[in-house]
Amino acid sequence: MNILITGAAGMIGRKLTARLMADGAVGGKPITAMALADVVAPEAPAGRIAFTTHAADIAVPGVADRLVAAHPDLIFHLAAIVSGEAELDFEKGYRINLDGTRALFEAIRARPDYRPKLVFASSIAVFGAPFPEAIPDDFALAPLTSYGTQKAIDELLLADYSRRGFIDGIGIRLPTICVRPGKPNKAASGFFSSIIREPLAGLEALLPVEESVRHWFASPRAAIAFLVQAAAFDTAKLAGRINLTMPGVSCTVAEQIAALRRIAGDKAASRIRREPDALVRRVVEGWPRNFDTTRAAALGFAAEASFDDIIRAHIEDELGGAIAT
Amino acid sequence: MNILITGAAGMIGRKLTARLMADGAVGGKPITAMALADVVAPEAPAGRIAFTTHAADIAVPGVADRLVAAHPDLIFHLAAIVSGEAELDFEKGYRINLDGTRALFEAIRARPDYRPKLVFASSIAVFGAPFPEAIPDDFALAPLTSYGTQKAIDELLLADYSRRGFIDGIGIRLPTICVRPGKPNKAASGFFSSIIREPLAGLEALLPVEESVRHWFASPRAAIAFLVQAAAFDTAKLAGRINLTMPGVSCTVAEQIAALRRIAGDKAASRIRREPDALVRRVVEGWPRNFDTTRAAALGFAAEASFDDIIRAHIEDELGGAIAT
Repeated sequence: MNILITGAAGMIGRKLTARLMADGAVGGKPITAMALADVVAPEAPAGRIAFTTHAADIAVPGVADRLVAAHPDLIFHLAAIVSGEAELDFEKGYRINLDGTRALFEAIRARPDYRPKLVFASSIAVFGAPFPEAIPDDFALAPLTSYGTQKAIDELLLADYSRRGFIDGIGIRLPTICVRPGKPNKAASGFFSSIIREPLAGLEALLPVEESVRHWFASPRAAIAFLVQAAAFDTAKLAGRINLTMPGVSCTVAEQIAALRRIAGDKAASRIRREPDALVRRVVEGWPRNFDTTRAAALGFAAEASFDDIIRAHIEDELGGAIAT
Repeated sequence: MNILITGAAGMIGRKLTARLMADGAVGGKPITAMALADVVAPEAPAGRIAFTTHAADIAVPGVADRLVAAHPDLIFHLAAIVSGEAELDFEKGYRINLDGTRALFEAIRARPDYRPKLVFASSIAVFGAPFPEAIPDDFALAPLTSYGTQKAIDELLLADYSRRGFIDGIGIRLPTICVRPGKPNKAASGFFSSIIREPLAGLEALLPVEESVRHWFASPRAAIAFLVQAAAFDTAKLAGRINLTMPGVSCTVAEQIAALRRIAGDKAASRIRREPDALVRRVVEGWPRNFDTTRAAALGFAAEASFDDIIRAHIEDELGGAIAT
């Protein structure tokens, strides 16, 4: 099995690469080669599977075609401009998140007798307020950000290209990934992670919104598990509705902080400093808070059971079990 | 008020032009000029308002920019490849229905201090089976045709461009227009009209699906009323959800035929010949059957009350009150 990963240099891309290198197979089929693409060439991963790295902007004409020239059996399409940046730079967001995705799908369609499995990393940002108490899979696509609009359009394209037989696609709407390791990125959702990550590392973190804000989370570990499971998933079971919301944990910022306090103590929790930010607040206000993921659960997808579990996953996977005191 | 109509040579475009020429104003504001665009130059309309006609393919670079160069205050964007043709010609459908619409929106965005009112003719084809008994406005966009996909993407773009302040947009999902006058077009839904229109004219009509097929209809007269009402509508009332399903009549083919029989007699109804067509049947199977249009009704939009009324509107507007016996 020959795999292409776009957005391979990002946090999820690197973790997915490492997981695939460790597993050596997807759904029981041995991985023979991996092509890792991103706007900057991804770092060489550790492992024994043959790989190539590509500095490639898929929105540039011809680039997507070169990436699929080897007819990868499986494509993880993760490449995207994040929400905050897509809101600030309208043209860049549409160019990468819409035109880049469409260029990839078109490059696949242009090749006769080629129909790869494609796992698309979508987002809960495809939904926008007002919401029901828990958002079902068949709720309206009415995003309130340009990023959410672009992801929703990508979902529609993936569904149509799949229905027409050009791609064997599955779109999984990832919860907000928390706790993101490393440095903050430009996602408006970054603070949900930094208010846990920084205090656990003995650093101060800024909280730009009220503690009553409720949101929907899964760990990086859970996100990688979703992607790998989707890759081996028989899409015939989806009966045409190929985009689905992944399970997650719904909790408020106050509940996040309470979990942090339970696991790392008052001193860690005291490292969070309130600093309201109007842009972040406005963007987050339109975001989903809770989902009905009966469908994904019935199909075998599972996330953490509590925010405490999410913090523990971070401590195990990123901090070697140790936290600052 | 300066108006641009794309798709002005189509059935709806011609009727809308005639209505605007007759009214001389929209929402109380006098119309000073009309630009009528389509891939073939629309015919010159009768009336006293100054007009220009344009043979223009909005998907061709530069064309959309020329159409908005005069900064029309109000744009009716009706131009589209119909459902049957978009399903048969994948590239043409995407080129006109997606790229053409996006080119129009981009041409508007490129002009500073210009934010026209734009009425987008969307379609119930943005929804796909399985459905609830009556589809609410906040139901998933999960189309089962390329045409529906393209219209759904256009809706998402219109909402984002409106949210960002580039356009003052409203998208209205027209029911299947019935009875369409004139010759059949390539829409898969064409038979819903021809089984009424042809028998009323003393001609035979083909029925490609079972009589149990249920669908959602409004007359051309109602569709024009929706467009004109949307043009004068204060979009602030839509609270960001700018795409909405218009009212209509839900009925089965059997109920259509019963209405025809009531109004025009057994002889007319006997002119319908059953001739199953697998492609039409497959396309129509994924289409909506009934809607909950509480929202549109509360906002003041109204359609016919029964299919009998729809047939009567056809006889009045197209046949001068006379039917073949």
